[in-house]
Amino acid sequence: MPEQEKIVTAAVLIIGNEILSGRTKDVNLGYIAEQLTKLGIRLREARVVSDVEAEIVAAVNECRARYDYVFTTGGIGPTHDDITSASVARAFGVPLILDPRARALLEPHYPPGGLNEARLRMAHVPEGAELVLNPVSAAPGFRMGNVFVLAGVPAVMRAMFDGLKGNLRGGPPVLSATVGAYLGEGVIAAGLGALQDRYPDLEIGSYPFFRQGRYGASFVLRGTDRGLIDKAAEELRTLIRQLGAEPIEGEAPG
Amino acid sequence: MPEQEKIVTAAVLIIGNEILSGRTKDVNLGYIAEQLTKLGIRLREARVVSDVEAEIVAAVNECRARYDYVFTTGGIGPTHDDITSASVARAFGVPLILDPRARALLEPHYPPGGLNEARLRMAHVPEGAELVLNPVSAAPGFRMGNVFVLAGVPAVMRAMFDGLKGNLRGGPPVLSATVGAYLGEGVIAAGLGALQDRYPDLEIGSYPFFRQGRYGASFVLRGTDRGLIDKAAEELRTLIRQLGAEPIEGEAPG
Repeated sequence: MPEQEKIVTAAVLIIGNEILSGRTKDVNLGYIAEQLTKLGIRLREARVVSDVEAEIVAAVNECRARYDYVFTTGGIGPTHDDITSASVARAFGVPLILDPRARALLEPHYPPGGLNEARLRMAHVPEGAELVLNPVSAAPGFRMGNVFVLAGVPAVMRAMFDGLKGNLRGGPPVLSATVGAYLGEGVIAAGLGALQDRYPDLEIGSYPFFRQGRYGASFVLRGTDRGLIDKAAEELRTLIRQLGAEPIEGEAPG
Repeated sequence: MPEQEKIVTAAVLIIGNEILSGRTKDVNLGYIAEQLTKLGIRLREARVVSDVEAEIVAAVNECRARYDYVFTTGGIGPTHDDITSASVARAFGVPLILDPRARALLEPHYPPGGLNEARLRMAHVPEGAELVLNPVSAAPGFRMGNVFVLAGVPAVMRAMFDGLKGNLRGGPPVLSATVGAYLGEGVIAAGLGALQDRYPDLEIGSYPFFRQGRYGASFVLRGTDRGLIDKAAEELRTLIRQLGAEPIEGEAPG
């Protein structure tokens, strides 16, 4: 397999008790997942981790050993419950240090004298980290090894991610086709399973919906070979017609 | 500590490639998290797991050993990519069997002869499992040991959860108070950290927001002792006023 065809993988760690208590509904995972898919990076797993250092350390170390990239969100603000940076330093076994570049980024963001001890927490990164810029509210994230540490506030996380994504090495992009039908999943399941068997290099998913009083499902064919996807999609349309329904191209309207 | 004060913990496993690709945005975690909090059950972690048997088996076995309850969502439909039930059976080391009660639930849901092989997949559970009823679309979930296996379609998952939650053993309910202020987190961080230090039995979180052109934060105090929460909340209001702002009671308007 040529070098450029290497599959590139990732994990996402959503850090914060507020997600686990239900107070805050995470929206960061969906954004990162979409972006990674566009970049040809396979998101293999995601975890929501509590604000407990040992938990963060364990999750970071497990995932950074297992995947090409790890993205964390949350826990890099100025308050006592923001422990992600210290936990990542611990995971890598390096000290957390005041980064002069981060300090220089924060300084003009506050009124004179406003860069107090709490805010200076946001200028601390693990020794050896590179900063990830924050065009929204100055306080940077960072990259340490293959771990990218991003903010939890969605607008800030997105700005950070959009800034860094040009530096990510993607694999072959994941292409897809979506064909749906107003058919019960149970009606098409046998034919769909046979189609999956005939196309082992594709990943065929079935996602049921209930709309306007009718049951149906969207079928998503994913892979890296456009020709193969198109061929399988055409067979799927034939299958749908054989079952007495009409193929719906793309995602069925909500 | 009396028996009824035992802390009860849980994990959620969201199973499905469609979440990891970004195609589908998960909404089940937020619902289960809120419900567990109301029941006095601490959700300690959540994971999004791909449709790969070994991954599901590993996550189920790790979490069921570690937490009092595990809730899975997704992967119990009739198509080839629905492998949760088989994976949970594998995790417990028992066969996947056709459950006559599940079959009896499915039979009247379809036209005569409609309960084909694919649909019968949904009547298979690990040997020894108890069914979790599905008042929406018949196909049941199940409980195996401390693992509850629920549907991925949100309306179905909620109906299943609402039906089973009366059987969950909760711990002391987690109570909370929320007080906010139009103050930068960095301004209040020192005082807030000192408040956390004075109330080690509470968990004090700070969640920044930007609304109507102003920065602020909501501070959430969580614990099991209402008196302690009220006392700390009163100190927090005093702190906010000392910093020249007015406390906002409850979640600040969006």
